[in-house]
Amino acid sequence: MTAPGLFITLEGGDGSGKSTQAALLEQWLDGKHRTVVRTREPGGTDFGTEVREIVLHSRGHISPRAEALLYAADRAHHISTKVRPALERGDVVIQDRYLDSSVAYQGAGRVLDSAEIRSLSLWAAEGLLPDLTILLDLDEHEARARLDGSRTRFDRLENEKSEFHARVRAAFLALARSEPERFLVLDAAQSPESLAARIRAAVEPLLEDASSGTDAS
Amino acid sequence: MTAPGLFITLEGGDGSGKSTQAALLEQWLDGKHRTVVRTREPGGTDFGTEVREIVLHSRGHISPRAEALLYAADRAHHISTKVRPALERGDVVIQDRYLDSSVAYQGAGRVLDSAEIRSLSLWAAEGLLPDLTILLDLDEHEARARLDGSRTRFDRLENEKSEFHARVRAAFLALARSEPERFLVLDAAQSPESLAARIRAAVEPLLEDASSGTDAS
Repeated sequence: MTAPGLFITLEGGDGSGKSTQAALLEQWLDGKHRTVVRTREPGGTDFGTEVREIVLHSRGHISPRAEALLYAADRAHHISTKVRPALERGDVVIQDRYLDSSVAYQGAGRVLDSAEIRSLSLWAAEGLLPDLTILLDLDEHEARARLDGSRTRFDRLENEKSEFHARVRAAFLALARSEPERFLVLDAAQSPESLAARIRAAVEPLLEDASSGTDAS
Repeated sequence: MTAPGLFITLEGGDGSGKSTQAALLEQWLDGKHRTVVRTREPGGTDFGTEVREIVLHSRGHISPRAEALLYAADRAHHISTKVRPALERGDVVIQDRYLDSSVAYQGAGRVLDSAEIRSLSLWAAEGLLPDLTILLDLDEHEARARLDGSRTRFDRLENEKSEFHARVRAAFLALARSEPERFLVLDAAQSPESLAARIRAAVEPLLEDASSGTDAS
């Protein structure tokens, strides 16, 4: 079932600029009189907030599968109550993180099988895939430098974190290669304005394709 | 991986006598100096209680897949933190309801696909199946009579409930037919003592098989 709206997700590690780009894209779409719903996972609904609280205050005492299933429950609820209704109204949904994050982080953590996490997510979301996924790709040292600010210490823990981010990054890039039509991969080291221009150029033709009920001039 | 303990589940509709039989079986096993863990789903852990609260106070505002995933999360946690450790210690686990209930109730409700619910449950539980599943089978009119006590009113709602219970019962019986080696199907209209004797007769040879660390004389 195809909805008249447009579903855009932003993916990438922490510090890659997803929030900034989501805000710039929303501004631009507002100027085009498109109704935008900005949302995120986990936690885009009250239900999601409750689920998140269970995960956070059970941290370390919850089995990996239980945690994956809770996040999938959040996804199922979020997609069916917030994202699908918006798409059916013809809105543009801009979402910070979706199933690619689940797959990439799970794959990098190497606890559960990525393919199983993908199946679980797709079952939860009744197969909903984004029309466009923007991957803000950032070298792990650059990402760390952004997050740490002026800190330059590089101890064992930092090194482990850096290796983890390198695995997450590699997993995101592998996902993008496997679905080149859905993904737009951008070097997040560019200026925010330059990135925003690239994103607008990718979104514009999709707006024209979308048979929206609103005036998408 | 096979654990030295014994995993017994009790299934059947409400009012079929699962709790009574679980208690009688535990007493008998106590007399044989076996360590017994009695548990239930949902809600066998603190985590499960929290999950259950979300489901209960979101009732009607939660998507069917989100609910199924929450119950699967409870199952994943319960099995990995309570049931498997007990089985690995060589204990006998007596559990009120497990994956057959999920499949039978889901199948009877006809919202989600039963085979998908079974796969989800098995993924959550890392494939753990009971050594023995006791199905307390009760005619739906008998079950209703037990639950209602002296009430004899039989209005439309009661009729719908009765039809639902008939579907649940049929689903349980179909599951038992598909795995005859795992299931012991008993007519729950028998006296509790007669049922208990049948159950003991089925459990006894399994105790002898189980290579328990404790003295199972």
